[in-house]
Amino acid sequence: QDLAMTAGKNAKVVIDNDKVRVIELQMAPGQSTGMHSHGDNIVVFLSSGMAMQTMADGTTRAMERKPGEVIWSDPVTHDTKNTGKAMVRTLIIELKEPKP
Amino acid sequence: QDLAMTAGKNAKVVIDNDKVRVIELQMAPGQSTGMHSHGDNIVVFLSSGMAMQTMADGTTRAMERKPGEVIWSDPVTHDTKNTGKAMVRTLIIELKEPKP
Repeated sequence: QDLAMTAGKNAKVVIDNDKVRVIELQMAPGQSTGMHSHGDNIVVFLSSGMAMQTMADGTTRAMERKPGEVIWSDPVTHDTKNTGKAMVRTLIIELKEPKP
Repeated sequence: QDLAMTAGKNAKVVIDNDKVRVIELQMAPGQSTGMHSHGDNIVVFLSSGMAMQTMADGTTRAMERKPGEVIWSDPVTHDTKNTGKAMVRTLIIELKEPKP
């Protein structure tokens, strides 16, 4: 499932070319992305916040982020919920597979 | 020239793997990156600010950015100076060429 679809109007595609797609995600407290999959991706946290991730196998993990934090993520399937008390704003930079 | 070298201690490599290198750049007012080159890259502006870019041919362009703005950049050689009145914080995400 595609984050740009599962997150509905919380997701906005800000760059989309043959190398990358960049999604800006804004979520109010209590909102979730819906279960979705990415290939290789980079996540940039623009605001501080707390989140709970549910993985495809049902396991969960809590995380807390600071503004400007950036992480690498291998391909993953998960659902992310804003468990903090403020709106969060995040950029997801999805790398596209090189053309053969 | 490599931004991580030309910008000296203003540049910090925060991710470096076979797909991408991510540099966090912090520059005080009046500071410059030094002339450097990137391949395909994405720039995320974490703070608002004003900058002047000098291209390899000597032409200049002014820009003003907002926190959370993200842009795609084709390969480029330039020098960027913080022309605002505040410290700026920027992430530069350099895509690496796929291995043959």
